[in-house]
Amino acid sequence: MKIAIIYAHPVRESLNGSLLNVMVKRLEAGGHSVQVSDLYAMGWKAVLDGDDFLNREPGARLDPMLDSKQAYAEGKQSPDIAAEQEKLLTADAVILQFPLWWFSMPAILKGWVERVYAYGFAYGVGEHSKLRWGDRYGEGLMTGKRAMLVVTAGGWTSHYSPRGINGPIDDLLFPIHHGILHYPGFTVLPAFVSYGIGRGRVDDVQYQAVASALEKRMDELFTTEPIPFRRQNAGDYEIPALTLRSELAPGVVGFAAHRSDFK
Amino acid sequence: MKIAIIYAHPVRESLNGSLLNVMVKRLEAGGHSVQVSDLYAMGWKAVLDGDDFLNREPGARLDPMLDSKQAYAEGKQSPDIAAEQEKLLTADAVILQFPLWWFSMPAILKGWVERVYAYGFAYGVGEHSKLRWGDRYGEGLMTGKRAMLVVTAGGWTSHYSPRGINGPIDDLLFPIHHGILHYPGFTVLPAFVSYGIGRGRVDDVQYQAVASALEKRMDELFTTEPIPFRRQNAGDYEIPALTLRSELAPGVVGFAAHRSDFK
Repeated sequence: MKIAIIYAHPVRESLNGSLLNVMVKRLEAGGHSVQVSDLYAMGWKAVLDGDDFLNREPGARLDPMLDSKQAYAEGKQSPDIAAEQEKLLTADAVILQFPLWWFSMPAILKGWVERVYAYGFAYGVGEHSKLRWGDRYGEGLMTGKRAMLVVTAGGWTSHYSPRGINGPIDDLLFPIHHGILHYPGFTVLPAFVSYGIGRGRVDDVQYQAVASALEKRMDELFTTEPIPFRRQNAGDYEIPALTLRSELAPGVVGFAAHRSDFK
Repeated sequence: MKIAIIYAHPVRESLNGSLLNVMVKRLEAGGHSVQVSDLYAMGWKAVLDGDDFLNREPGARLDPMLDSKQAYAEGKQSPDIAAEQEKLLTADAVILQFPLWWFSMPAILKGWVERVYAYGFAYGVGEHSKLRWGDRYGEGLMTGKRAMLVVTAGGWTSHYSPRGINGPIDDLLFPIHHGILHYPGFTVLPAFVSYGIGRGRVDDVQYQAVASALEKRMDELFTTEPIPFRRQNAGDYEIPALTLRSELAPGVVGFAAHRSDFK
């Protein structure tokens, strides 16, 4: 199978870089082909702006959505954007690897999402009607592909527990899992998160444990049970309000309502 | 009073830009002085990298935390970072204004946070002991200053309601409210969010309603009741596990546990 890894750490000789090596080695040993986008090494342009759209009228006011739509439709996107889209289209699985900075992905990766996720590619796809609100949240161009996050976090496991001060890790990652991966149709796997990283070095024992667990996740990339996010257009939501139907998970509010395993 | 507005929209002649004008005009009419950081217009560098730290050894491996700590301590940060820190230090209130892109802030603003929030300035501040886990989550250099978000969202209000498909807006903004604003000590006000923005233009009636509501929020900037986030070192949390003490809000898990108004 083909796997695309989007790597967003400034230092290749870091723990994140070592874990990237672990993944690539294990996946290739398993017969897969792996393509890495090392965003820092590529000098990835993080900021979406008018230069992304090669068919804009000179001097015209930027319209991020409309310009994205037209550039994508006419094949006039900046080549770095088109190249990343091509990687996603040919991949069977996509891994986003990053350190958790301020409880989300680093700016360089956020900018990758904003620029690569063009109108017509990742949003604004499909029919809007009384029955459908676009091909999103379980449908879209990424349908059939798997995606997972590989994350390092500076705090302790307990700090990210259900009553931990940083908030539960599943809730912190929901906007990425659901809003960035489930949205264009990816099948989303549970994240691989390592805690206590970044303040001082991890020792060999801790590193080996993390590396072994990550190898196992790579072995199971195509068999791991995904997060059971609900599909927008499959009957669970009122359209166009897009609220969960009252008979489903009665009383449940918040992110948990969008998983079909919460009753 | 002094107000700093960090503005993160690529187009000054946008709805966001109009709302920025509304805020500046109203605040100045109220006798306040306003300083705007228009990140796109400034060509703000979004990506944290080795160029941010002017005292690094040539060729040394980047260590984002340690290098940030040393550059901040020795006054050797990139001047654009130091200038933004100075704005925060002199401000009585800070407003972050942005369109919600992929359920979070635009990359250019995320990069502002990552670069301006230096080690020693916004994190890694204060004593770590059995009684204290650093000056954070309610303490820190931003203590006594107010902060609020002014956000436009493309979806409908119902899409961001408690059972709406995007997730409740309060939960989507929690990593910013709690993890970015409460963390270095800001007093966090409820966000001002406008929905249904971005797909086509808002009409005059809708615009006037939004502008008037925003003017009211500016009038009440220093009297609005803040979000009652719990303080880390004030007795509510076990240290160092940093989990909410079992007798507080029993049974409550997730982001809500960190607000003292959830019982």
